[in-house]
Amino acid sequence: MTPRVREILSWYESDNPGVKTNLARMLNHGTLGGSGRMVILPVDQGFEHGPARSFAPNPPGYDPHYHFQLAIDAGCNAYAAPLGFLEAGAASHAGEVPLILKLNSHESLLSDRDPISVQTASVGDALRLGCCAIGYTVYPGSSLAGEMYEQIRDLAEEAKAAGLAVVIWSYPRGSSLSKDGETAIDVAAYAAQIAAQLGAHVIKVKLPTAHIEQDAARKVYEKEKIPVGTLAERVRHVVQSAFGGRRIVIFSGGAKTGDDELFEQAKAIRDGGGFGSIMGRNAFQRSKADAVKLLGRIMEIYR
Amino acid sequence: MTPRVREILSWYESDNPGVKTNLARMLNHGTLGGSGRMVILPVDQGFEHGPARSFAPNPPGYDPHYHFQLAIDAGCNAYAAPLGFLEAGAASHAGEVPLILKLNSHESLLSDRDPISVQTASVGDALRLGCCAIGYTVYPGSSLAGEMYEQIRDLAEEAKAAGLAVVIWSYPRGSSLSKDGETAIDVAAYAAQIAAQLGAHVIKVKLPTAHIEQDAARKVYEKEKIPVGTLAERVRHVVQSAFGGRRIVIFSGGAKTGDDELFEQAKAIRDGGGFGSIMGRNAFQRSKADAVKLLGRIMEIYR
Amino acid sequence: MTPRVREILSWYESDNPGVKTNLARMLNHGTLGGSGRMVILPVDQGFEHGPARSFAPNPPGYDPHYHFQLAIDAGCNAYAAPLGFLEAGAASHAGEVPLILKLNSHESLLSDRDPISVQTASVGDALRLGCCAIGYTVYPGSSLAGEMYEQIRDLAEEAKAAGLAVVIWSYPRGSSLSKDGETAIDVAAYAAQIAAQLGAHVIKVKLPTAHIEQDAARKVYEKEKIPVGTLAERVRHVVQSAFGGRRIVIFSGGAKTGDDELFEQAKAIRDGGGFGSIMGRNAFQRSKADAVKLLGRIMEIYR
Amino acid sequence: MTPRVREILSWYESDNPGVKTNLARMLNHGTLGGSGRMVILPVDQGFEHGPARSFAPNPPGYDPHYHFQLAIDAGCNAYAAPLGFLEAGAASHAGEVPLILKLNSHESLLSDRDPISVQTASVGDALRLGCCAIGYTVYPGSSLAGEMYEQIRDLAEEAKAAGLAVVIWSYPRGSSLSKDGETAIDVAAYAAQIAAQLGAHVIKVKLPTAHIEQDAARKVYEKEKIPVGTLAERVRHVVQSAFGGRRIVIFSGGAKTGDDELFEQAKAIRDGGGFGSIMGRNAFQRSKADAVKLLGRIMEIYR
Amino acid sequence: MTPRVREILSWYESDNPGVKTNLARMLNHGTLGGSGRMVILPVDQGFEHGPARSFAPNPPGYDPHYHFQLAIDAGCNAYAAPLGFLEAGAASHAGEVPLILKLNSHESLLSDRDPISVQTASVGDALRLGCCAIGYTVYPGSSLAGEMYEQIRDLAEEAKAAGLAVVIWSYPRGSSLSKDGETAIDVAAYAAQIAAQLGAHVIKVKLPTAHIEQDAARKVYEKEKIPVGTLAERVRHVVQSAFGGRRIVIFSGGAKTGDDELFEQAKAIRDGGGFGSIMGRNAFQRSKADAVKLLGRIMEIYR
Repeated sequence: MTPRVREILSWYESDNPGVKTNLARMLNHGTLGGSGRMVILPVDQGFEHGPARSFAPNPPGYDPHYHFQLAIDAGCNAYAAPLGFLEAGAASHAGEVPLILKLNSHESLLSDRDPISVQTASVGDALRLGCCAIGYTVYPGSSLAGEMYEQIRDLAEEAKAAGLAVVIWSYPRGSSLSKDGETAIDVAAYAAQIAAQLGAHVIKVKLPTAHIEQDAARKVYEKEKIPVGTLAERVRHVVQSAFGGRRIVIFSGGAKTGDDELFEQAKAIRDGGGFGSIMGRNAFQRSKADAVKLLGRIMEIYR
Repeated sequence: MTPRVREILSWYESDNPGVKTNLARMLNHGTLGGSGRMVILPVDQGFEHGPARSFAPNPPGYDPHYHFQLAIDAGCNAYAAPLGFLEAGAASHAGEVPLILKLNSHESLLSDRDPISVQTASVGDALRLGCCAIGYTVYPGSSLAGEMYEQIRDLAEEAKAAGLAVVIWSYPRGSSLSKDGETAIDVAAYAAQIAAQLGAHVIKVKLPTAHIEQDAARKVYEKEKIPVGTLAERVRHVVQSAFGGRRIVIFSGGAKTGDDELFEQAKAIRDGGGFGSIMGRNAFQRSKADAVKLLGRIMEIYR
Repeated sequence: MTPRVREILSWYESDNPGVKTNLARMLNHGTLGGSGRMVILPVDQGFEHGPARSFAPNPPGYDPHYHFQLAIDAGCNAYAAPLGFLEAGAASHAGEVPLILKLNSHESLLSDRDPISVQTASVGDALRLGCCAIGYTVYPGSSLAGEMYEQIRDLAEEAKAAGLAVVIWSYPRGSSLSKDGETAIDVAAYAAQIAAQLGAHVIKVKLPTAHIEQDAARKVYEKEKIPVGTLAERVRHVVQSAFGGRRIVIFSGGAKTGDDELFEQAKAIRDGGGFGSIMGRNAFQRSKADAVKLLGRIMEIYR
Repeated sequence: MTPRVREILSWYESDNPGVKTNLARMLNHGTLGGSGRMVILPVDQGFEHGPARSFAPNPPGYDPHYHFQLAIDAGCNAYAAPLGFLEAGAASHAGEVPLILKLNSHESLLSDRDPISVQTASVGDALRLGCCAIGYTVYPGSSLAGEMYEQIRDLAEEAKAAGLAVVIWSYPRGSSLSKDGETAIDVAAYAAQIAAQLGAHVIKVKLPTAHIEQDAARKVYEKEKIPVGTLAERVRHVVQSAFGGRRIVIFSGGAKTGDDELFEQAKAIRDGGGFGSIMGRNAFQRSKADAVKLLGRIMEIYR
Repeated sequence: MTPRVREILSWYESDNPGVKTNLARMLNHGTLGGSGRMVILPVDQGFEHGPARSFAPNPPGYDPHYHFQLAIDAGCNAYAAPLGFLEAGAASHAGEVPLILKLNSHESLLSDRDPISVQTASVGDALRLGCCAIGYTVYPGSSLAGEMYEQIRDLAEEAKAAGLAVVIWSYPRGSSLSKDGETAIDVAAYAAQIAAQLGAHVIKVKLPTAHIEQDAARKVYEKEKIPVGTLAERVRHVVQSAFGGRRIVIFSGGAKTGDDELFEQAKAIRDGGGFGSIMGRNAFQRSKADAVKLLGRIMEIYR
C-alpha cells in the first residue's frame, strides 16, 4: 500500500472498510497500481450508441470477452460495462481485472432532448458478478435529472452498505443547456460537484472547454479571475470543484480523436491534478495491439 | 438545561425523547447554547448554485472540512449540508458540532419555473452520519409542491420515529408566484404555517418584505390592520404564523450582503421574536477569520 | 349507550369493534353525546388558506392549543386538524376530546384549476396521536380525483384494520364543474354517494343549493320530481344519497356568515335528517366566549 | 475535542460517524469529559435484584427521575437503565445526560444455575428515547451463553448501522464456573476478550481477583509469569485482553462496599490503565448528597 | 491468472463470478499467489481459548493490528478472524490482505461435551468489512451438529448470492466420538465430505491420525485396503473424500508444536495433494520475525 493510495483512502472517512477495500483494489491494480492515478476502460457504447457505431471499426469488439482481455492486457485499473457485457465474461475472467457494473443505460434510438438513463442492473448483480463498484450516469440539466438523482441515491446507499464503491458519470445534457454548454467549464465543474454531493467515490466528467454557459457563473469566473484558459487549468478547477481534491475525478475525451491530442489531454489531466482517464472508443475502436500501445503510452504519462 | 430551552422543548409535546434530545443538542451547543436562539451554518450552495458561484470567493470552501471547522470555530448551533459534504468530514469531526443532513437538493442548471427539490439522502444516512436532524426544502407555490409535501411527510415520520428532529426550509417559488411574491409577507407567513403543519420542529424562511402577493390575503391584512411595516413586525407576524410562537423559526438573508444590513436584520429578528439566523454565503464567502468575527457579532445580538 | 347510537353503530356492520368503538367515542362525547348528532370543529384553514386569512380575525387562534380548548369548552364531538396542529397539543389535551387527523392538505398559493390534496400525515400518525379517526378530502370533478380516490382507499383500508374511523370531506371542484356546480344539489348528492362508496364512515359535504349542474341529472330530478326546493329537502336528498341514511352525513357552511343564517342552516339540517355540522371559520374566527355561545345554540337546535 | 478522545475514537476505525459521535458524546460529557475516562451510573438492579433490595436503603431511588438527576448532579458520563426507567424520565431530562438503554434483563426470582438475560428493549426504543448506546449483558460460562451471543450480534449490527454505540456487560456465570471463578483473573480477561470479539465499543467487567479458574489457563499464567498480584496489575491484564487497549474497558465493583475500598479500586483502575468505573449500588443506595460527593471523589482520582 | 488457479476455479462451476472472483483473490494473493496452494492465518483463539492462552506467549498479539500485519508481512493468502478482531483493523489495512470473517464462535469457559459454535457475525458484516469469504465451524459428531448445519446452509446461501466464498472448519467433536476419534482418518475424511456436501468452497480439517473410529468404516478401510499409513496417504484420502479433489482442502496442525514437525506436516500435505495450511498458534505465538520466517519456509515447501 503506497502512501499516496493510503492518503486517497483517508478521504473516504465515512465509508466502511468494504468500500475502502474495493477502492484500493482499483487503485492498486494494473500498470498504474499504487500511483493514485487510474485508467479505466468503459464499454457501454453498445447500449448507448448501438453496436455498429461502436464495434464495426474493430469487429472483435462485438465479443464481450474482447474487452475484458483488452483491459487486462493494457493494465487498466478497471473495466466498466453494462449487465450483459459483464455477465458474458465475468466468470472466465474472475479475479483478473476489477469490474464496474454500469447500473443504468440510455439508448440513442430515442430522440429525447431531456434524456434519462434508466436502471438496467442492480447492486445484487454487482455483487454476484464480483464487481468492485457500481457505475451510474446522471444528466445534470435534463428535466429528468431529478429522477436519476433519486435513483442513484437509493442505489448508492445500498451499494455502500455492501462495501461497493460508487462511480458516477456526470454528463450535463438536456434542454436547459446549449450544445457548447454540455462541456462548458462552469457546467463541468458543477457536474463534478453534483456527483460529489450525491456521494460518489469516483467521478467521471468530460474534459471541459473554456466556454462559460451560465450568466450567473460567468460573473463569478470573471470577478474571481478563475484561470480556465488552458486545459490543465480547467482540469484543476474541476478537481477543486470536487471537494477541493478530496474525491477521485477522472476524465473522458469523448469521441475518437487523434493520438497526439489524447496524449496532450493526458498531460493536461496530469498537470491539472486529475486522477486519470476513462477511455472507451479511443481504445476499443482500434486493434488490440494498437490499443494496448496507446493505453500504455497514456499510462506512462500518468506514472 | 436553561429554563428557556426547557420551555422550547415543552412545545414539542407529541415528540419522543429522542427528538427532544436532538433539539436540545442543537439548542445547547455553541455560543448561543442555552439562549433559545440559534445560528446555523448551511452549505448546500455547491449543489444548489454550483461550485464556483459558491466557493470561488473564498476558495478554502471547496474543501468540505473547511465548513465543519468554520461552524465549530464560530460556535454555531449546527451545520447543515447535503450527503457528500457530510460524508467527507463527519468522521473527523464526530461529536464536534450538531449536524443536519439535507435530504433533498435542487440544481440550477435546470431552467424550471416550477421547481422540485429531489431526495438525495435518507434518514438512514442521517443516522449513520450521527446527525441531530434531517433538513428538507419545500417550494410552496410550485406546481410540484405536492410531491415534496408527500415526500417530507414520509421522511419526517421515519425521522421522528428514529429520534431525529425535522428542519424544513420553506421557500415559496413557482409559476403561481411573482418574483416579489416569493418574499411577500403574506407568502412568507403562509410558508411558515405550511412547514409547521407538515410537522417541522424548526422552520427556515426568508426574511419577508412588506409586499402582499395574494388578493384574498391583502383584504385580511388591511381589515385586521396587521402591522407589517418594519422588518421586526414582519418577523413577529411570521413567528406568530408558526403556531403562535410554538415552533422555532429561523431566518435566512439570502445572497451576500453588507455586514451592517446583516446586523440590522439580526436585530429585527431578535426584536420580532425570531429564533435566529441561518447564514450561508454571508459566512463562508469571506475568510474564516472574518466569518468567525461576523458570526460572533451576530450571536452577540442574539445573546 | 343510547338506542340511537346503538342503531347508528349497527349500520357499520362490516367494521371491526375498533372502528365501532371510535365511532362511539365521537358520538358519545360532548354536549350532543348520545343524541346521534354531531358538531365537529375543523381547523385546517391554516394550511388551506394561509395563517392570516384564518387566524388574524381572532389572533389567539394562531396557537394550536386554542382550538383544542375551544372544542372542549364548546362540547364538540370531535376536533379535526392537520398533523402539525395535532402534534402541537395532543399530549396536553390527551383524552379530553376525540381527535380526527386530516391526512391530506392543499395549499392555496398554487393556482390550480384541477386541485389535488396531497398526503401530509399517515395512519401511523393518527394512532400515535390518539385519534379516533382519519380525515381525508376528495375533490370529485377534478382531473386528479382518481389519485385521491386511490390514496384514500389505501389509507382507509389501513385505518380500518387499525380500528380507526374514516371521515371523508367530499368537495366537488375542478375544471369539469362550473362555480355554481360545486354546490349544486345533484353534485352534492353525488359527492356524498362517492364518499359512501369509498367506504367513509362519516361524510362531510357542503350545504347544497337548488342549482342542478348536470344535464343528465336534471332530467331525472325533473322527471322524478325530487323535492329540492328547500334546504331541508336538499339535506334529506343528500342523506338519502348516502346509502339511504345508513351513513353519518354532516354539513359545512363554508365561509363566515351571519349567525341567524347559521341557525337556519342547522334547523334545515336537523329537519332534513342530517347528522350535524362541521363548523370551522364561523367558530374560531370570533372570540372564544362568542364561539362557545354560538356552538351551544347550534347544539340546542340539534338536541 | 481533546487529543485523548480523538485517539480513542480512532480505534473504532470500522465504525460509521454516527457511532463515533455517540462515543464522543459520552466521552465528552460530565466532569470527566475529554479525559478519556468515564464514570457511568447504571441502575438495572430493580429488575435484576428486586425493588426493596435495590431502593429501600435510599427510598428516593424508587423514583426513576431520581437517578437521572443523580447522574446529572454527579457529572457522570452516562446513565444506563432498562426500558421502564428510561421511559419514565427521558423526556424530562432530554439532552441532559447521555443515556444507555439496557436491552436485556434478568430477574432473580428465578433460581437458574445457567442464567440467560432476555431481551426487554429494542434498538428502536434506544433511538426513540434519544440514547447514545445500547447495553447488553452476556454470561460467559452459562450453558445459555450462546443464545445471548447470537442476540447481541443481531442487535449490535442493527445498533451500529443506526449510529448507536454498543456497551457489553460481560459477567461470567453458570454451572461451568465456581463462585470464585466468576471473578477469577483468567475468567475476567476472557470475558473482556469475548465482549471485544462480539464487537463491543465499551466493555464492562467486574474487578477481578488473583484467583485462576481454568487449569489450561493457569499453566500459561505461570509459564508466562503474567503479573496479576495487585489489582492494578489485574486491571492492566484485562485491558490488554481487550485488544491490547484498543477498546474502552470499565469496571464495576459489585455490591456496596466501604468508601475507602472504592477509592483504592479507582486508583487501581487508573494505575492499571482502565478507563473508569460503572457504579450503581454504591452510588444510589446512599443519599444523593453523599453519592454526589462519593462520585466526585472517584472522578478526582481519574482526572 | 495461472493455469492451476484457472483449473481450480473451474471446479466451482455452479458458483457465480463473484464467488470465483473472491476465490481467485485469495488464491492469487501473497507468496503462494498463483500456485494453487494457500497458507491462511487464522486468529480466532482469543474467543475460542481465551486471551492469555492465546496471546501471552507473544504479547503483541493482544493487538488486533498485529495479526493483519503478520499476515501481510508473511505473504499469507488470507487472514481469518472473528468480528471484533476484523472491525478493529479492517479500515487501516483495507486492500492489503484478503479477509475471512468467522461467522461463528465457541468459548471454552463452558464445559460442554456436545459443543455448538454460535453465530457471532453476519454476511452483512463480511460485506461491510470487505471480506472475500465467510468462515464457519461445524462440529460433526456433536448432538448439536444439526443446528450448525442448518445455520451454515442458510448463511452460505446468503453469502454465495452476494459473491462471497464459503470456508468451513469441519472439526469432529462431541459425545459420540472418543478423544482419538476426533482426528481419526475415517472421521476426518467424513468431516471433509460433510463440509463439501454443505457447499463449502474451502474446507479446513485437522491433520488425521491412522486411528479408525467407526466399526462400520473400519471394515471398509480394511476390505478396500485404503492406504492410510503415512500422513501423506491420509491427506490424499481426505482430499479424495472432498469430491475427488474438486474442493480446496487445507489442514491445520492444532496446538503449537516443533518446527521440524510442521515442515514434515507441510511436506505430507504437499505430497498428499493437499492445498495448504491454516496456521494460527504456531504462527502468532512466536515473535513476528520468527513467524514470518516459519511461514516463509512452509510456503517454500508448497511452492
